Amino acid sequence: MQLINEKVKQAVSILKELNMDCWLTFVRETSVTGDPMLSFLSPSDLTWHSAFLITGSGETIAIVGDMEKRGIEELGVYTQVRSYVESINPELQDVLRQLNPSSIAVNYSTTSEISDGLSHGMFLLLRELLKEIGFDDRIVSSEALVSRLRARKTDSEISAVICAIRETEDIFRLVKGFIAPGRSEREIAEFMSAEVAGRGLVPAWDINHCPAVFTGPDTAGAHYRPTGRVVEKGHVLNMDFGVKVDGYCSDLQRTFYILEDGETEAPAEVKKGFSVIVEAIEQSRLALKPGTRGVDVDAVARGLLVSEGYEEFPHGLGHQVGRFAHDGTALLGPAWAKYSRKPYEPIEAGMVFTLEPRLTVPGRGVVTVEEMVQVRDHGTEYLSTPQMELLLI
Amino acid sequence: MQLINEKVKQAVSILKELNMDCWLTFVRETSVTGDPMLSFLSPSDLTWHSAFLITGSGETIAIVGDMEKRGIEELGVYTQVRSYVESINPELQDVLRQLNPSSIAVNYSTTSEISDGLSHGMFLLLRELLKEIGFDDRIVSSEALVSRLRARKTDSEISAVICAIRETEDIFRLVKGFIAPGRSEREIAEFMSAEVAGRGLVPAWDINHCPAVFTGPDTAGAHYRPTGRVVEKGHVLNMDFGVKVDGYCSDLQRTFYILEDGETEAPAEVKKGFSVIVEAIEQSRLALKPGTRGVDVDAVARGLLVSEGYEEFPHGLGHQVGRFAHDGTALLGPAWAKYSRKPYEPIEAGMVFTLEPRLTVPGRGVVTVEEMVQVRDHGTEYLSTPQMELLLI
Repeated sequence: MQLINEKVKQAVSILKELNMDCWLTFVRETSVTGDPMLSFLSPSDLTWHSAFLITGSGETIAIVGDMEKRGIEELGVYTQVRSYVESINPELQDVLRQLNPSSIAVNYSTTSEISDGLSHGMFLLLRELLKEIGFDDRIVSSEALVSRLRARKTDSEISAVICAIRETEDIFRLVKGFIAPGRSEREIAEFMSAEVAGRGLVPAWDINHCPAVFTGPDTAGAHYRPTGRVVEKGHVLNMDFGVKVDGYCSDLQRTFYILEDGETEAPAEVKKGFSVIVEAIEQSRLALKPGTRGVDVDAVARGLLVSEGYEEFPHGLGHQVGRFAHDGTALLGPAWAKYSRKPYEPIEAGMVFTLEPRLTVPGRGVVTVEEMVQVRDHGTEYLSTPQMELLLI
Repeated sequence: MQLINEKVKQAVSILKELNMDCWLTFVRETSVTGDPMLSFLSPSDLTWHSAFLITGSGETIAIVGDMEKRGIEELGVYTQVRSYVESINPELQDVLRQLNPSSIAVNYSTTSEISDGLSHGMFLLLRELLKEIGFDDRIVSSEALVSRLRARKTDSEISAVICAIRETEDIFRLVKGFIAPGRSEREIAEFMSAEVAGRGLVPAWDINHCPAVFTGPDTAGAHYRPTGRVVEKGHVLNMDFGVKVDGYCSDLQRTFYILEDGETEAPAEVKKGFSVIVEAIEQSRLALKPGTRGVDVDAVARGLLVSEGYEEFPHGLGHQVGRFAHDGTALLGPAWAKYSRKPYEPIEAGMVFTLEPRLTVPGRGVVTVEEMVQVRDHGTEYLSTPQMELLLI
């Protein structure tokens, strides 16, 4: 409830800032095809066609099915809550005629999935109902608004992210005592999943690979479920893991080394790989400031790895984190077509990013560390407690 | 894994039946904006732009990000699994050029939310990449295909639905012993939620109102969270509740009556309301057959209630149930604009529907029963154990 209150207010001020007239979120059966913006607007899924209109002049209007009116009304957030039984069109057309906005920003974007919650069928329906009132040429993308609304986290959003990070770090500490030669990736993941459930938490992404656990050389490397492969001495083992607290995610990776008999530290090539990763994170953190571009920050880490003789990592350096592990529009990534304009979006104070370069140490495994940072006015600070040493088993 | 194997095979045969060339599901960051068809195609969420192409001639092709290739390959379902790092476009264009389909069915629909998983931004991207190869005029809606694929449940899908129904009925039996004057809606819901969690299940819809519990007159009536309102003697109490088993939902409603001191049965007006509801369900079940239309089946129950002097219920008589509590396209509903063509879609054998008329008994509460049925070749059978008597407390 508090979240919706905060984010709707924030939306009004961003509309003003962008000189946008009206933001419209238009949904139906949101348990089937949800809009990622809905949790900023409604406390529950919605069944029938529903519309949320927020204007730069501070009007906040919800139109929902009759059965769902009371739940929206008592939020106390909307200046008007309208409802209907047979069709949303007359109510929505009536509201729009009264507002008469010069443009209507709706949630679609070719670039930014977080700004792309409007389905194509709903777009067609909306265009048709706008056509009936002569407004169909007023549709614009809400990407600029939605991107800022996701990026500018309120204090309560940041608190939840930090809690999720602390829980994750705590589970990493516990699992260090569980990892041992002979344990399988699957056993290690199950140990962590039991900790997650025992704390009443949920994983931050698809339970099939949260945590992801990779031990030794020639693993799938990322986004793959833990297997029956067992930990061996001399392996590099890495994990990708996060949890949700109050709907907000953490997303961290840690690298372990399993000592061979007689070893007291990792072999030189593993140590070198790890120190290059730590250095790449630190250098890119220092480069990440308001007004910079993600493509340039990515290049700092990518360039360092290449200059040290490693291959480029086959993904971006980092993404924003929020209600989804991958949240927001601006991205720290290379100029690859699939990232579209995301690496060129200006970095703003308040954004929460991961920094996650990776490299392979042949015959040993993948060294990868993922930290979480927040951009501040004068630089970027760690939210996670950075891994500065290999975790030795 | 089994599910994907079954549904992909079924998709090929439905494509043939509909004389459709090619079905394309096109997604990105599916944890943020998922397509409801994805669980029939992939075992996990997908991060980068991904495409699944199935043809009437039996070709099954997946194109996913490099990191996610292995997880798709080892399904053993796809005849080709391609992957990429920088952009999906060359791979997808190459596959489409080779297939050269006369039409490309994609998941959008103004009528059917279950067939509307393609976001508008992804539609624009797709149209652009098809334009580059001169195929942009080949896009059609996959609604007919998707609707059949959701409606025609395999044996394993039906088994899961029946398990979910049995769990739900069992929890209804248990909660009957818990309901008592002085208990609040919230306490009753918490008792049920604890049962759900204790069985390792999850609610079938939004946890805020699954179960929904309404006691006495003048409640919100539906789609509203349980409140602190307490059960009183003389109340009619109803519940709407379901769970998921192996990803498949149940969705049932039951009506209880809380006896006043000295009463051994409900008062006449409550008994009458209940018997009208039971009769409406039974009459509409008998009317529901392959080849009929939902609008006509809805009219049977609606007409009966009105002829008995009650108001029309402000929603459809019933919806399909599957991986979502509200699943599928064909609907048992009135000719209201928001239902579009859904009440006119032909009923097919195999479809699983709810039947859920409701009416108000003034001063007592809402009487509503929701059963689940399956359409068979020669008629419709109950999957749930129908409530034939008021549950007396």
